[in-house]
This record gives sequence, structure tokens and C-alpha cells, in this order.
Amino acid sequence: MMANIKKIGVMTSGGDSPGMNAAIRSVVRTCAFHKIECVGIYRGYEGMIEGDFISLDARSVKGIINKGGTFLKSARSKEFMTKEGRQKAYNALKAANIDAMVTIGGDGTFTGALVFNKEFNFPIMGIPGTIDNDIFGTSHTLGYDTALNTVVDVIDKIRDTASSHNRLFFIEVMGRDAGHIALNAGVGAGAEEILIPEEDLGLERLVDSLLRSKKSGKSSSIVVVAEGDKTGKNVFELKDYVNENMPEYDVRVSVLGHLQRGGSPSCFDRVLASRMGVRAVEDLINGKSNYMVGLLNDKINVTPLEQAVKGKSEINKELIRVSDIMST
Amino acid sequence: MMANIKKIGVMTSGGDSPGMNAAIRSVVRTCAFHKIECVGIYRGYEGMIEGDFISLDARSVKGIINKGGTFLKSARSKEFMTKEGRQKAYNALKAANIDAMVTIGGDGTFTGALVFNKEFNFPIMGIPGTIDNDIFGTSHTLGYDTALNTVVDVIDKIRDTASSHNRLFFIEVMGRDAGHIALNAGVGAGAEEILIPEEDLGLERLVDSLLRSKKSGKSSSIVVVAEGDKTGKNVFELKDYVNENMPEYDVRVSVLGHLQRGGSPSCFDRVLASRMGVRAVEDLINGKSNYMVGLLNDKINVTPLEQAVKGKSEINKELIRVSDIMST
Amino acid sequence: MMANIKKIGVMTSGGDSPGMNAAIRSVVRTCAFHKIECVGIYRGYEGMIEGDFISLDARSVKGIINKGGTFLKSARSKEFMTKEGRQKAYNALKAANIDAMVTIGGDGTFTGALVFNKEFNFPIMGIPGTIDNDIFGTSHTLGYDTALNTVVDVIDKIRDTASSHNRLFFIEVMGRDAGHIALNAGVGAGAEEILIPEEDLGLERLVDSLLRSKKSGKSSSIVVVAEGDKTGKNVFELKDYVNENMPEYDVRVSVLGHLQRGGSPSCFDRVLASRMGVRAVEDLINGKSNYMVGLLNDKINVTPLEQAVKGKSEINKELIRVSDIMST
Amino acid sequence: MMANIKKIGVMTSGGDSPGMNAAIRSVVRTCAFHKIECVGIYRGYEGMIEGDFISLDARSVKGIINKGGTFLKSARSKEFMTKEGRQKAYNALKAANIDAMVTIGGDGTFTGALVFNKEFNFPIMGIPGTIDNDIFGTSHTLGYDTALNTVVDVIDKIRDTASSHNRLFFIEVMGRDAGHIALNAGVGAGAEEILIPEEDLGLERLVDSLLRSKKSGKSSSIVVVAEGDKTGKNVFELKDYVNENMPEYDVRVSVLGHLQRGGSPSCFDRVLASRMGVRAVEDLINGKSNYMVGLLNDKINVTPLEQAVKGKSEINKELIRVSDIMST
Repeated sequence: MMANIKKIGVMTSGGDSPGMNAAIRSVVRTCAFHKIECVGIYRGYEGMIEGDFISLDARSVKGIINKGGTFLKSARSKEFMTKEGRQKAYNALKAANIDAMVTIGGDGTFTGALVFNKEFNFPIMGIPGTIDNDIFGTSHTLGYDTALNTVVDVIDKIRDTASSHNRLFFIEVMGRDAGHIALNAGVGAGAEEILIPEEDLGLERLVDSLLRSKKSGKSSSIVVVAEGDKTGKNVFELKDYVNENMPEYDVRVSVLGHLQRGGSPSCFDRVLASRMGVRAVEDLINGKSNYMVGLLNDKINVTPLEQAVKGKSEINKELIRVSDIMST
Repeated sequence: MMANIKKIGVMTSGGDSPGMNAAIRSVVRTCAFHKIECVGIYRGYEGMIEGDFISLDARSVKGIINKGGTFLKSARSKEFMTKEGRQKAYNALKAANIDAMVTIGGDGTFTGALVFNKEFNFPIMGIPGTIDNDIFGTSHTLGYDTALNTVVDVIDKIRDTASSHNRLFFIEVMGRDAGHIALNAGVGAGAEEILIPEEDLGLERLVDSLLRSKKSGKSSSIVVVAEGDKTGKNVFELKDYVNENMPEYDVRVSVLGHLQRGGSPSCFDRVLASRMGVRAVEDLINGKSNYMVGLLNDKINVTPLEQAVKGKSEINKELIRVSDIMST
Repeated sequence: MMANIKKIGVMTSGGDSPGMNAAIRSVVRTCAFHKIECVGIYRGYEGMIEGDFISLDARSVKGIINKGGTFLKSARSKEFMTKEGRQKAYNALKAANIDAMVTIGGDGTFTGALVFNKEFNFPIMGIPGTIDNDIFGTSHTLGYDTALNTVVDVIDKIRDTASSHNRLFFIEVMGRDAGHIALNAGVGAGAEEILIPEEDLGLERLVDSLLRSKKSGKSSSIVVVAEGDKTGKNVFELKDYVNENMPEYDVRVSVLGHLQRGGSPSCFDRVLASRMGVRAVEDLINGKSNYMVGLLNDKINVTPLEQAVKGKSEINKELIRVSDIMST
Repeated sequence: MMANIKKIGVMTSGGDSPGMNAAIRSVVRTCAFHKIECVGIYRGYEGMIEGDFISLDARSVKGIINKGGTFLKSARSKEFMTKEGRQKAYNALKAANIDAMVTIGGDGTFTGALVFNKEFNFPIMGIPGTIDNDIFGTSHTLGYDTALNTVVDVIDKIRDTASSHNRLFFIEVMGRDAGHIALNAGVGAGAEEILIPEEDLGLERLVDSLLRSKKSGKSSSIVVVAEGDKTGKNVFELKDYVNENMPEYDVRVSVLGHLQRGGSPSCFDRVLASRMGVRAVEDLINGKSNYMVGLLNDKINVTPLEQAVKGKSEINKELIRVSDIMST
């Protein structure tokens, strides 16, 4: 079915991630390719309510594929959570003759999009943009691969100083409810232990494992900890615990924080963003709505937004085992 | 079936690629985990013939997961192509009580392994290590993801100077018979045109497209060319051709060459190497032989070495279309 | 003496280099700080002749300090070499009420500036922007430090593959008449030999040295060659020569080319650009003209443009000796 | 005067910094060049006391010029602060026939060296290795330039997310008593404000300046804070203060921490390390002792260790002014 789409809006919402600019560029150029107008919506739902729009043609997105962040900016909007706010947003879209939109963000963004679609029957396609990789319906969210490279690069640096001083480092990485970054970057950085929300290792086991490491001749150790790990302790408490139970260790803490969100996107994220943008726009043109574009089995595919929001992105159990073996 | 494997050899052969060290580390640690001895074979089949071996335990591979190249070194061996050479290699392996081996390399490496297995019934598992991604049976070869990041990073740099001077650049990337690097890095770097061996764009179309680019307001252009592109011309001839047919362009050439092979592996390649090493060793322990470990649909799987050698890794047609749309 | 400067023009000319954007930003912000108007001149003298100007305030240069290249673009202008061209340029500047200008570039740029000043008594300050570091009156030109980091980073990558394969690499770096990049990046990358225009090593000595390297146990070698080295041979001829005289070596060539010009500037270049921009503008305000801002003994200072153009930036002889010792 | 030096020891002590490995390599190769034996001392004074030595020849330091940290490892030694400890150290050096030593580290390292020299008349040359650049007698300490690049690279990443969300970031960098990193990396990263120990900006002025920034149209802001800044508040307290006094700002904090110590050294640090190592060894050979090698006015020179320890490395006042102008 061919929808009569003449103008598409594109926006980024929620926490930013590398690749968002590349996805915007792809949406804009795919619109240009199909002779459809494209409009950028600033600051997510906030800017939508205010009608803070900008007309975008193929040339206006040149030179942004390699830039971190999102030039359309992102924000969280309380007003959009109210019926009145959404009505204003709808009015603004209509006033600008926008027929459909591509929204790039995470769970919160998609939940808002679903409500909005239900109320106003406004066609929407979602693109998963978050470094946490915690979205159901895609093996990779936009920005996740870049964040992994950023994290291993930083841990490589910390390893330099850790091994020069025979130190134990607890390194906290992002991922409030999802251990994807911790697990993958931990394996990638050759971490001795990895603490993730999905698994309860137990503090005694951690101490045991560190003792074994020490005995086996490891002079320094890196423990990667996801923000919301199951031990219930944050990295500073972990440090105190180990200090108390293993006084022979010189323990340090590093909280990587927001640097994980930035940086020029990896080739993987740029290509993924380009592919997702094409699909999102062409699905809107073909009359689809309420789907999220994702990468499944290495192919671009779509999942109903409702499922994407409800489902859970499972951690790779095989990789937990690989991690254990690598710590031998 | 449980084979009685007590000592496993590991080697790298053919062109080196980032992630080979991480794969060696994984093979060594998986052996240690299963209380099996592990032996490194230097310089591929050449060192195998000479019995140039080194005993490797879990600690001997520390600090190498993030190093480019291969510390076991690689080489091409003419002697191994002879029956006598292979007999010497077999004798050396037997003399060292090596029961099975993991070989990390590309097509040529695997072809040699198959012949060797046929002659001596020596258990072998292969791990695909090459930046070209031209191996059937895996969506990603080891080093490919890293090479893509290296290439887009370099093209980003060239883009800086190209757009400061309104120039047209022909950039040659590796991939003698496979356009994977050119296509993916080209899309990732936002190249205006991509020339690959799998597709014959035709020189007139290239000129047409560049003229259209110029008209549409693009002031500089990047054309990514795979070594063995279908135009039959190399980058210097392409430059001459465009110089003649589009004298208004200031054309430059850059041949990226060997820098694409080096560098610290990306997180993706380190994780992939770790997963592949575990599977290769455990399959040998379980009595398997003559398989290549690969990534298929995001899962670790195996393909008979024979198929891996005979099959062809297809280019992603969807991505060619995405590339066209992005050049709008 | 306080000149009555109300509007300053800024331009980049000649080959671009990392840090040019940071220097433009500094000129613009220093003007804003002193409540002086600032105008960007596009495409060097070419844009000056055409009156291709843009008004720049403090906010218009945000987010560019870390960008390679020059957003004002650069060009070489034949017309400016004629009296008529320069008259047009002067008319355009006067028509836009521009009282003085900061020109960022190399020798050619400054030579043009001197002629222009002589003819029209137009106040000019120069900032040395080129990766070659071949300007008299400054220990560091803008972009040089960044280029050195780019080159050692690339050679590190090539070293990975060189040592995996026991190969000899000839790597050509920029610097047509100046060996600064070759010498410093060569020492930084641990090159076995460095060939520069300032020194005639002689081909026999090169072969001798490589033979000694091989004997002393070095399995791979990197030889860094400046474009205009004294042997009179380019890297491909060097390869042939060594192939003939040392057939035991597997020799490869890599021409780094334009990637050396791009990339995000190093901290050093960003800080240097910021300091130079302040000085250039404040000297114009103070009635100075025809000077180049430079870094001398770690302090910002100025040199008459005439001297800068005539003088020669000498190679560091001590570093040549250090290089010899490091190759032991 | 020519001393009769036949064997030189080299060690790293105190906090590690990028370039230490390059300096060790230079010391080793300069010894080899002069046919002098060289011995590596592990873990600073700790290893010296224990006689934890390793013989090093030219080949044993290959492939380390580009590695962060120090392969000789570093430590702080309480025992060396006692007369008995130092006596043991001297005995160990004599037992190994070590005639002189090069010690790479910071203030604490040099203080220990001076005491040791006074007691045992043991020839010592110092090389300043610390990222803080807080040593008198050299414009640049080893590792400082690399740390600056690391910090601006990380702030560039944080800027991506800061400007996507219109946020204010307080970023804490290293430098307990010295604002060199904060000031230079702050200018390099285009920070809106920089808080350093050497200057008391005052909290009201900070708030004023941020308010002015906001009014002038800046949507996001980066404030770089040295660990020991003069406000007496750490970054978390600063955040609370601004939250209270400027509730309209979304404030975040990032403590960069140990990642600043690691990473592959910049070309500048590699070259500096190579030059310093040559000078240190040759001065020992020439009978000198108790000097620190430094870079002064772009030339390698020496300063009496006593002065190096007592003197203070002054902050660049001109750069503070440049920083203010850039924040316009």
C-alpha cells in the first residue's frame, strides 16, 4: 500500500548516541531520493510541541555522518506526557504539513510515540538510538558499537597504568539495567571480572576470583562493573569491600560516565544508521507505521513498536561463558 | 564424541589481520581452561616445517588482546605446497606431541590445511583471519571490522583537506576480489561513489554522477575504489580519465595500502576472536575436524572447511542501494 | 601606537593544515573581545578578489576548534599574481570596509601578502599554517604537531604488519624541501632509517645499514622517506634498488599522501592557534603590520614577514644524531 | 671529564606516564651505542633494594616506543626512605656492578635520588616523567603532551553529548598542585571556564560568567577543573553550588581520573624521551651527576636536581589571558 506521504519529520529524543546524525542524514537523503520533503524537529518532543522545525534538503546534512551527538539536539519533555502537550505537538506538525515522522531514540521515546499514534493516528517509524543496546528487536542499537570501542580504548589506557603499578581497578561503565556494554567491553578489554545486572556473581566469588588471579601470577586486575550490577553495590563500595577483605591490593576506581556517549561513530554505526534511515522512510512511504527498524540476523528488519517496548534484549549467555574461560 | 586431545598447536598464516593475537590468546586460554597443553607455531606452515614452536600457557598471552598483527608471525610457505614439505611438518608436529591444531588465516591457509588433513588425518579447525571479509561461512572475518574503522578514519582525514580545497579524491582500499571494505567503508565515510569488483558501474556513469554531484552543489567528492574494481582501471588511470573528461576538477589519488592491516583491534574483533577461539578448541576436544568457525546470524557456528574454501562471500546488494540513495 | 582598526578580515590560503579553524576562531573571538568587527574571506586570495566574504561573530565559530581543514576553504589564485587581480582584491576589501587582515598560510601566502601590502599599504599579520614546518621564525607551524601524530599513528599500524611478516617498508611522508616531518615522525615511530632532503645518506650506506640491522637480529624494518630526499630517488625506485641489491628482503612501499593534512588538531596545535590568533589581532590593533606570529623559545613572538619568507627553517642536527643512536 | 662508567641502571618511579618506555629504550640504546652495559631496575627503589634487575640490550627494548606505562613497572618505596633501605639498595647496585643510574620520575623520585647520591656518592641523572608538568627545569615533562591530547579527546566526546542536551559539565582533570593540564587542555577543548590551583576565580565570578555565557547564546558549557583548584571545592560540590544558584542549568560531572595516565605516547613525547635518554647517558659517561635533563627553549639542557626539586614550574599567565579572550 502506498501512503500519500509528502513531508516527513525526523527527530532525536532521550539520551544521545553516536550515529544519530548519520541516521538523520539517511532519513533526509532518502526523502530527497523519493522527492519527499523532510523537516528536522529540534529537541525531541519538546521542540515538536513548540513547532521548532527546520527544513532539510540533501545538502543540509553534508559533513555530519562522522559527527557524534545529534545536531537536532535531544531533550526529555514533561509536557508531552500530558494530553494537552501532545495535542499541541500534533497541531504543530499539522500546521507544518508534516504527514509522518521518524523518531530516533530508546524505550521512552517509543512509548511516547505509541501513545501519540494511538491518539492522533499519526504514522511513525522508530530507529533505536542508544548506547545501552537494551532494545528488543535489534541485535545492535545505534551507538552501541561505538561506545564499546570507546570503552575498550579507555580501559586499554587504564590497563597501562594498572600494570605499571600492579593495581586493581574497578571501572564503572554505562548500562543501568543492561550489562551489554560491561560484558562485551569487558571481554574486549580482557577484564579479569565483569559484574552485570543480569547475573549475581556474589561478592565472595569476586574476592575468590581475585585471589586466584593473584596466585596465578596476575599482577594487575581490571574489574568492569555495569552501573546497575546485581551486587547492589556501586564501584566505591566495591572498592571499600575489597580494601577490607584484600588489604594487599592497591585498589582504584574509575567511573567512565558521559564520555561513553560521545565520539565519532564507528563504521558499523554509520552503515547501520544509513540502512535504518532508508528503511524507516520507505516503510512510511509504503504505508507502514508503528514499527521499529532493527538489525536481526545481520539483516534490516522491523518489529512492532509495541513489542520493542515490551520485550527485553537478552544478554548473550555464551559470552558470559567465554568471559569466564578468558579469565583463566 | 570426545577425542583424546592433549596438546593443541595454534598458528597464523597468510596476510595478517587485527584480532589474530586475540584469537591466539583465546585458543591458549581455552586450552588452559580444559587443562590441555598449547603450543604456538611460528611463521605459519614455514615454522611448522621447521618445528619452530613455543609452549604457551595462560600467562604467556597476557597483554596481547589489544595488539595488532600476530606475535606468532605469518608467512607464505612454498615448501608446504610440496608433499615433502608437508611430511616434514607432520613429523615436526608429531615430534612435539601435538595432536591437533587451530589455524588462523584465509582461503590459502585453509586449502593447505585441507590437503594436510587428507594426507595425515590431522585434526584441524580454522578461524577466518583476514581484513577482506572474503570467506564463505562467516558474516565477519577477524580484522574486517577494525579495517573498516581504520579506513573511515583515514577518509575522514582526507575529507578535511578535500573539502578545504574543493577537490575530487580517488581512494584505493584493499580487497582484490571482494568489495566488502570499499562498499562498507565507502558508505561509512559518506563517499560520493564506490567502485567494487562485483559491479560494473562504467566510466561514463561515474563521470555523469560526478557532474550531477557538482551541479547539486557538492564542492568536493570522495570516490572509494576497491583494488580490483570492475572498471579495469586503477586509481591513477581513473584520475587521468577524469582529468581528461572533467578538466574543471582538481583530482587527487590516495592508495591506503598496508596501513589497513594494522592497528589495535576493535571491540567487535576482540570479542569475535575470543568467541571463535573457544569454539575452535572445544570442537577439537569434541572430536570435530575440518571446520571453520564463523559468525552466522550473530551466532558462533561452524562450516566445513571445504565449503568455506569453495564458497563465495556475497556482497550485500541492499547496501549498494543504500549507497546510491545516500549519494543523492 | 593605536591604529584605528574597526574591521579585520581573516583568510586561509595555500595547503590546508589542522589548526587553521582554531586560528580563525581565535581571530574572530579576539576581535569580538576588543569590539572589532570580523569578516571571513573565503578561498584565500581568490575569494578576496571576488569579495566572497562572511561576517563572523563569536558564536559563528563555535564547535570548530577541533575540526580539521578550514571552513573558510583555501585556494591558490593566479589572478592575485597580477596587479589587476590585487587591485580588485583591494577594492573588494575597501568596499567591505575591511581595515586590516590576518592571513593564515605558508611561504606563498606571505609572499603575496607582502606584495599586496607594498602596493596598497594594507595592514597584514601572518600566521604560519602548514604541516611541513618549513617556515622561518617559528619553531612550530600550525598543523605540524598534528601531522606528526598522524604519521606515527599510521607507521605504528604498518609496523604491526611489517613485523608479522618480517618485511622492509619504505614509507613516504610529506615535506618537499624539508625533512622535519620525516625526521621527527621517523624518530617517534622508531624507524630504522630516515631519508631527508637536508642530508645525503647515500644508497650504499642505506644498504649497509639495513644489512647491519638484519644481522643484529631485526626482523623487520621501517625506512621513512621525505618526498624530496637527497638520494634523488622516490620510494618506488628505492624499493627496486633494494630488491636488486638485497633480494633476501620482502620490500613494500607506502605513500602516506594527503591523509597527513587532515584530522582533528592536537591539543598543542589548538593552543598554539589560539595564542597566535590573539597576538595577530592585537598587533594589528596596536598598529603593527607585516609581521608573522611565531613560537620562539616557547613564547609567542613576531618576525618580519620579509624575514619569514627569506629565511630557512633549519633541521635539528641533534635529532639526526639521536636518530642514529636509536637505530643501534 | 670522562668517568669510568661500564654499567648503567635505569628505573622508573612514582606515578607512571606515557613516554617512560620510550625513555628506557633510549637509555638502553644509547648505552649499546657507547658499548656500555645496561640494566633495568624493576619497580623503582623497591626493586632496587631487592636487586630485582634485568640485563637489557638494544634488541630487548624493540617495539616499546609506542607503549604506554612502563615495562619496568613503578612503585613507591617506604623502605627507601630509611637509611637501612638505601644501604640495601646501594649494596644491590654494587653487587650487580652498576656504576651509575638514570632515574625517570617526578619530584619524589628526584628527592630520593639526591639523598642517595649524598650518602653513597652514586652518579645519577634524572629524567622528568609525569603527566602533571609540575617540574622546574623543563618546559615539558614526559607524558604531559600525551595527557593533553587524551584529555581534549575525551572532552571533545563529552562536548558531543553536552551540546546535544544543552548541559553544563564540570570535568575534573589531574594536577593536584598544578593547573598545567587544566589550563592547556581547557583552552584546547574550548572550555568556557577553567579552574586551576594557581588562580582564585571565585564562585560568584564563575556563576556570573556562566550566566553571561547563557545570555550570549551558548547552549552548553564545559568547565574544566584541576583536582586542587583554588575554590576549595571539588567538582561534586561545584555541581551542587551551581544547581542551587542556577537551577535552570542541567549540570553533570565527569572525573577523568587514571585514563589520563595511559595511552600510546604522542610523537612529541616519543621524540622528547629519545632525546632525553641520550643526554642522560652521555652526561653520566662524561662524569656528570645530579642533574635533570629538561627541555628549555626547545633545546635539551640540564638543571641541577636540587634546583629541579626546589623550583616551581610556573603557569603560563599569557595563556590564562588567551583563555579569557576565547570565552568571549
